[in-house]
Amino acid sequence: MEMANIAKLAKNSSIELSNFDSNKKNTILDNIAKEIEKNINLILKVNSEDIEQSKKDGLSMPLLKRLSFNEEKIKTVIQGIKNLIELDDPVGKTKLSTELDKGLELYQVTCPIGLIGVIFESRPDALVQISTLCLKSGNSVILKGGREATKTNKLLTEIIKNASIKSGAPENWIFNLETREDVHSLLKLDKYIDLIIPRGSNEFVKFIMDNSKIPVLGHADGICHCYIDEFADINMALDITDDSKTQYVAVCNALETLLVNEKIAKDFLPKLNEKLTNKNVKLIGCEKTQKIISCEKASDNDWSTEYLDYILSIKIISNIDEAIEHINNYGSGHTDSIVTSDKSSASRFMNYVDSGNVFWNCSTRFSDGFVYGLGAEVGISTNKIHSRGPVGLEGLIIYKYKLIGTGQIIKDYSNKNFTHKKLNKTIDF
Amino acid sequence: MEMANIAKLAKNSSIELSNFDSNKKNTILDNIAKEIEKNINLILKVNSEDIEQSKKDGLSMPLLKRLSFNEEKIKTVIQGIKNLIELDDPVGKTKLSTELDKGLELYQVTCPIGLIGVIFESRPDALVQISTLCLKSGNSVILKGGREATKTNKLLTEIIKNASIKSGAPENWIFNLETREDVHSLLKLDKYIDLIIPRGSNEFVKFIMDNSKIPVLGHADGICHCYIDEFADINMALDITDDSKTQYVAVCNALETLLVNEKIAKDFLPKLNEKLTNKNVKLIGCEKTQKIISCEKASDNDWSTEYLDYILSIKIISNIDEAIEHINNYGSGHTDSIVTSDKSSASRFMNYVDSGNVFWNCSTRFSDGFVYGLGAEVGISTNKIHSRGPVGLEGLIIYKYKLIGTGQIIKDYSNKNFTHKKLNKTIDF
Repeated sequence: MEMANIAKLAKNSSIELSNFDSNKKNTILDNIAKEIEKNINLILKVNSEDIEQSKKDGLSMPLLKRLSFNEEKIKTVIQGIKNLIELDDPVGKTKLSTELDKGLELYQVTCPIGLIGVIFESRPDALVQISTLCLKSGNSVILKGGREATKTNKLLTEIIKNASIKSGAPENWIFNLETREDVHSLLKLDKYIDLIIPRGSNEFVKFIMDNSKIPVLGHADGICHCYIDEFADINMALDITDDSKTQYVAVCNALETLLVNEKIAKDFLPKLNEKLTNKNVKLIGCEKTQKIISCEKASDNDWSTEYLDYILSIKIISNIDEAIEHINNYGSGHTDSIVTSDKSSASRFMNYVDSGNVFWNCSTRFSDGFVYGLGAEVGISTNKIHSRGPVGLEGLIIYKYKLIGTGQIIKDYSNKNFTHKKLNKTIDF
Repeated sequence: MEMANIAKLAKNSSIELSNFDSNKKNTILDNIAKEIEKNINLILKVNSEDIEQSKKDGLSMPLLKRLSFNEEKIKTVIQGIKNLIELDDPVGKTKLSTELDKGLELYQVTCPIGLIGVIFESRPDALVQISTLCLKSGNSVILKGGREATKTNKLLTEIIKNASIKSGAPENWIFNLETREDVHSLLKLDKYIDLIIPRGSNEFVKFIMDNSKIPVLGHADGICHCYIDEFADINMALDITDDSKTQYVAVCNALETLLVNEKIAKDFLPKLNEKLTNKNVKLIGCEKTQKIISCEKASDNDWSTEYLDYILSIKIISNIDEAIEHINNYGSGHTDSIVTSDKSSASRFMNYVDSGNVFWNCSTRFSDGFVYGLGAEVGISTNKIHSRGPVGLEGLIIYKYKLIGTGQIIKDYSNKNFTHKKLNKTIDF
């Protein structure tokens, strides 16, 4: 089928889906969970074919790990769907109600965005999470997963599609794309597609942003900082730096640049050096850092590099405002943490650092939709409109204004005021 | 000054401004209102120079009217600033607070978007409204108004800038651009500018959308519909159609296409024909319409044309679902109204029409920020993310997540659950 056709069908289904009540959507989600459970063996078999092929193609071990959809992971996504069923339906909430005049009432009511295109990496669990999040929030979705997972993704989409249609979902609320050419066509369809959520490498996300008029929700870079203030507890600072950097180096919320206040640097850096060198982290530092510990010299380029590796750049700064300025200048607005026992420093840092997630005395690694209790996430946004930070159900919602009159025309209000009385009413249909 | 420099300075000021409390911002707004009042005579003089020049350039009467910034209009914007002072500050509101674990608390707190670029038509009152809305919401703003208002805009920006700096505003929170080349440079500065709000002609808005990576909030087309249901009160339908079409034809919320249920068409259309022909409205109808009243034949193109003129296209449809489908297919997601006495039809229309503003038994012309009681508006959005419909203070706000810990690292949570307890707490710094 042509891409424009697919998008048109999916868009039409989104209008239908946007009017499903919670029970209907939860019944569908329950059926999806059951059908995935029923088909575990088939999923394992097909996934092992993808893995075999990828091994032949020389895929690296970490990528093979992400591609693998073993029984434990399948059970986790099934549990995820069950959790999603428990979550509040974000659709149809009256956010504002105002009487404009007697018999003229305005309601702002939440509704789904419409049709969402999600392009994601080779993790089959992501397909299930994203599509069920879209369903619960009343959105249609067009998915394109990593090439390596082609067979698994195709099967999973079929299972989800069949299970959902059987329990009443509109026929075309979900599509799975298989080729890169399809993605290129997709990016042109701003008439039908309301939002693109790309996940994956920086280059890829930037490519999407550069090549589509459709709004993009996502993040290209995750250049996260820790700032070790002069009033930091040294042991806490060591643990937080270590965890932020090494607990999982390949993720977007891992630490890339450490900023250290000069008043604590001599005490802190040698201890950090010992701790991280033991974990094979390569340190790259500014000149002042090099005077305290032996390390490679950082270039200006290092401050804007997302290593996603066992590498940490370190800069000694003279006060908190210099730290804030550095982060706002070189950071990517993702996640930045301050370690300090001084509340006013923490406050200043959290208020002046212009990032989606600003932390005090904890690891940057907490920046995550599951951790935040959003139920699940479609990704983390460094956008500054619509959604910021981890994006869950609420991030897939917009609103419409409903105005209910009794024949009013604007002409009559040239000499008449609006009442603008808050109603605190919920719209009843 | 180079545009990148201007944008960088404005961005830096936005961080400072984002931390101003309500009192501080209201004091600044109050001072701006006073300084505008003090300078009324100078403003009138400079505005008359712009008008003289535009008359020489042959500007049309309606445009000259919009350009004119007379005493009455100046008093209205001053009153507008006073109203804005009374409005709730949208910044710093805790929208969500969750305990992730003992001593690990997450807050979602509203904050300004940052630096906003607004490109608007030749209405000097728009400059005052937009810049004060940005100030109240804590955003820096770069403005580019219509060429015809160059001198007036320059003076108004100077007055606003000086008045605000004198009362404590950061030096570079507002800039006024004067050339089209500046706008072209602006569109490239996605590193600094967080949002572009274009107002003006369709072509211009589309040009902006096509030529920038920066998110755009606005609307290109305003193709608004009225649907006259079979259960409509004929007199109400006549008044609403007339008002929606003729009360002000040049605005985006004016009616462009009328959809009429075939069961009421024979009764309704001759009366409408009489009413609108008296007002020199040209009617363009589908074949079925032509069998009832004499009018030009509509082409497919008419259904997607925003006339902004005394022209109305009319289509007879056989049921409400056909009306919904027509609107979702040809409309622009702006404002659509149903006239009916049947609640279930109204409900179906309002839930299935995918537009920012859906109305029942009232004129499309009510779609406006002042009418809605938003205080003021920077524009009307047909986007489906961030803001939809009239955009006031809330539309210039996003949020950040603040996480406050006591040394927590993610490693410890591989075998430990998060508590995810709702706190209903407000962050206190």
